[in-house]
Amino acid sequence: MQLAFTPDEIAAIVQPRAARGATAAVIRGISALGTARPGDLSFLGNPKYRSEVAGTRASLVLVPPDYTGEPAAGQLFLVVDQPSVALARLCARIEQMLRSPPAPGVHPSAVVAPDAQIATTAAIGPLCVIEADVRVGGRTCLQASVYAGRGTVIGDDCLLMPGVRLYPGTQLGHRVRLHANVVIGSDGFGYEQVNGRHEKVPQIGQVVIEDDVEIGAGSTVDRARFGRTIVGEGTKIDNLVQLGHNVVIGKHCILCAQTGISGSTTVGDCVVLGGQVGVGGHITIGKGVKAGGQTGIAADVPAGTYINGTPALPYMLERRLAVLHQRLPELFHRLDALEAQVKKSTAAK
Amino acid sequence: MQLAFTPDEIAAIVQPRAARGATAAVIRGISALGTARPGDLSFLGNPKYRSEVAGTRASLVLVPPDYTGEPAAGQLFLVVDQPSVALARLCARIEQMLRSPPAPGVHPSAVVAPDAQIATTAAIGPLCVIEADVRVGGRTCLQASVYAGRGTVIGDDCLLMPGVRLYPGTQLGHRVRLHANVVIGSDGFGYEQVNGRHEKVPQIGQVVIEDDVEIGAGSTVDRARFGRTIVGEGTKIDNLVQLGHNVVIGKHCILCAQTGISGSTTVGDCVVLGGQVGVGGHITIGKGVKAGGQTGIAADVPAGTYINGTPALPYMLERRLAVLHQRLPELFHRLDALEAQVKKSTAAK
Amino acid sequence: MQLAFTPDEIAAIVQPRAARGATAAVIRGISALGTARPGDLSFLGNPKYRSEVAGTRASLVLVPPDYTGEPAAGQLFLVVDQPSVALARLCARIEQMLRSPPAPGVHPSAVVAPDAQIATTAAIGPLCVIEADVRVGGRTCLQASVYAGRGTVIGDDCLLMPGVRLYPGTQLGHRVRLHANVVIGSDGFGYEQVNGRHEKVPQIGQVVIEDDVEIGAGSTVDRARFGRTIVGEGTKIDNLVQLGHNVVIGKHCILCAQTGISGSTTVGDCVVLGGQVGVGGHITIGKGVKAGGQTGIAADVPAGTYINGTPALPYMLERRLAVLHQRLPELFHRLDALEAQVKKSTAAK
Repeated sequence: MQLAFTPDEIAAIVQPRAARGATAAVIRGISALGTARPGDLSFLGNPKYRSEVAGTRASLVLVPPDYTGEPAAGQLFLVVDQPSVALARLCARIEQMLRSPPAPGVHPSAVVAPDAQIATTAAIGPLCVIEADVRVGGRTCLQASVYAGRGTVIGDDCLLMPGVRLYPGTQLGHRVRLHANVVIGSDGFGYEQVNGRHEKVPQIGQVVIEDDVEIGAGSTVDRARFGRTIVGEGTKIDNLVQLGHNVVIGKHCILCAQTGISGSTTVGDCVVLGGQVGVGGHITIGKGVKAGGQTGIAADVPAGTYINGTPALPYMLERRLAVLHQRLPELFHRLDALEAQVKKSTAAK
Repeated sequence: MQLAFTPDEIAAIVQPRAARGATAAVIRGISALGTARPGDLSFLGNPKYRSEVAGTRASLVLVPPDYTGEPAAGQLFLVVDQPSVALARLCARIEQMLRSPPAPGVHPSAVVAPDAQIATTAAIGPLCVIEADVRVGGRTCLQASVYAGRGTVIGDDCLLMPGVRLYPGTQLGHRVRLHANVVIGSDGFGYEQVNGRHEKVPQIGQVVIEDDVEIGAGSTVDRARFGRTIVGEGTKIDNLVQLGHNVVIGKHCILCAQTGISGSTTVGDCVVLGGQVGVGGHITIGKGVKAGGQTGIAADVPAGTYINGTPALPYMLERRLAVLHQRLPELFHRLDALEAQVKKSTAAK
Repeated sequence: MQLAFTPDEIAAIVQPRAARGATAAVIRGISALGTARPGDLSFLGNPKYRSEVAGTRASLVLVPPDYTGEPAAGQLFLVVDQPSVALARLCARIEQMLRSPPAPGVHPSAVVAPDAQIATTAAIGPLCVIEADVRVGGRTCLQASVYAGRGTVIGDDCLLMPGVRLYPGTQLGHRVRLHANVVIGSDGFGYEQVNGRHEKVPQIGQVVIEDDVEIGAGSTVDRARFGRTIVGEGTKIDNLVQLGHNVVIGKHCILCAQTGISGSTTVGDCVVLGGQVGVGGHITIGKGVKAGGQTGIAADVPAGTYINGTPALPYMLERRLAVLHQRLPELFHRLDALEAQVKKSTAAK
């Protein structure tokens, strides 16, 4: 999508207290002061970049009231109380334009069970499949090709991007945002070994995604064996993350891309896991724990600790050990020399 | 989905030898003895939890014949020979209810090539695409939005969840279960460097998935360069696993989530790989090998070994080295002290 | 898909200079000399396998002009200038047959916005969704169930496999190949913490995929916060790879499966990252860098270096440290012995 805003349209959105200069440019991009080109909008959000305003090639710059510099020729400064807030308002407007929600109602190509209860303000996009006994809340949008299995409950103001798959019985709260090809409610990975073969343990629980959760593209959340796999309110999950059966994630956590959490593990509130973190099964991670990228967690982690490495250790210790590890050649050399010296000294006696 | 079983319906499924007590509750959940609430069913599967039966709040408890305790008021005990077997039977029944297989036949919204051969007992759900020359076996169900490329063969009693993608020529055995958004038969990752550019090596082989294989949501299996990528009978694969071209996985293996196996690697029967394991290309992993989570395997592994770490080492050795690694600071301190002592002692002479 | 070529059909494709022997077999597979079975085609591409030709069970063998051996009974040798080139030509032909591109035009089951601009030679397969203002170039094929969001631009000769999801504003160059269930343009993972909650930072940029890029099944590429996430010309990306917002990948790179790159990181031209590599955010990886599988990159990497391990170190150093790490038990034993000896020697004085 190509942006195209006239300076007047920008002004209508950001509501400046004053303007200096003028530009004939149509605004087609947003960029930092240093990299902006003509046709871009930029902004002075952080005072430390103040000196860059004078040299920027941006056609339009959002500046704070205390910035007194004058624009170059063909350049427009819009004076706003908080440039970063004004920018956020503009970005939110652009975001709305980028989405193409189907109009409220059910697209004729969607396949919807007769007894599904769909709010009149909800939008069911093309080629969605809505099974029996599904409920969809107000202003919720299923963008296209979304599958909602039997008995699924989807709250208000949710946004489900194309290719989302909800297994039967999934429950989504309000304002849940699921990105393309997310899978919620797939069978947990449970087998019992019987005569050398793996017999499937039925996975008949469900998944509950609480309010204000966002889950990134291609991530997968398994249903519980029985009971519920839970993702707590306000938690944000990145792309290609895997949550096993009966996992319970607390509120307001951040799980970065490609992290995986094995079955029956409990993660406390406000935990932050970096990318590609792996967590074993039946583990408890305390409230507020932080883990660096690729950390491997095989045991309980006390609340509030910052861990790193495989096996996971307190961050500062792990960093110190990594430095000493690189001094292993020195260690061997010193030991060789000392052994030789002691041997010589012993022989000399 | 909300469970709702009357006690009589439960009894009809588990066929108790006797009953003690009574409950008016409708059973809406299954839970462990310690966490059960009124309306839940629980069970005494493991004798070590025997003492928990007396205090459980479950409305209905499956107990073995040798359990002699009496139920509380409003509580029903059903006496069954093996509570865990009775529970499995109940769960299997619930699982059937959770699935919403389309009725046998082809949903009118599916796009099916005229020459596709679909068993009369098979169910092709809404918005599936079945290309030319595809064969679908008896009682097999393609849930919704499944793509089966030209010449695909799908056996009997298979279950393909929404969004499964089968590239042309894929072969599935009987009782294969593929979870949502699984991709089978994508091109292997093969290029030849020609004048600094990567020229694609055609990937014209296929993928064969043998009987009783289950593959988790979002996993991907590449087609062979030529010949066949194979997943052996009874092998179970978790979510977001990647198998490269010409990989051969043995029978009855367990591959946990986010594991990746590079091209042309062979994995023996009954191998168990933990989560996020990485295996290089052209490697042979012997029968019965076990690898811990995040293991990095860059060389052949003899049959029957248990390995861990990156680079992969025998498990006990790797654990011992990890402990010694944490003693590196001590090692440096001791060496410093010893050097000082030897220096002093030499100087004293 | 079952191959079925008569020897005459093979000859018509590979154009041999001469033939020796004859076979009545229909060619149904391609295999290496050592593993070929009757009905297979094989080839002598590398002189070191010359001795294997005499014993191969292949029904048809492509041999170079300087190979003078005679075929067995029922075996056909086709003499070609370069067997590997002849094989590639045959494979390319087979690959065409494996694909089942919809005929040019829009399948009646696709949902296409009236103002979408679709080249007359393009093929829009069944159940695709094409939103407003999309452009699709000549000879491009959207196989089935592809979603193209508003304002998406797709170049000429692209191939988009089933289940590809393009968020609004995505730009694909020419000859781009996206495998099944690839997601391009999902929101970047950006939040600001406000009163203990994570407030979403709008992600209004886009993704640009340049010419001749191929991306493997299930991979995800996030849109920029603002500006552009870029994958450079000729770069090849394997399955289940994750690229964060504002990542810039250079030209002719190779990113192996399950690798993840965090936001705002820049990767130079001709970089090769092994499988499951993790790269932190706001990092610069220089031109021509190579990284082994599972490498963890947390800091800038100078051009041309070969790195390995977590934390990433120069390859030779990391290998040496790994060897010394395994000698830690020896180190402790030697230090114990030396301490004892020094103690004794000191006591003796």
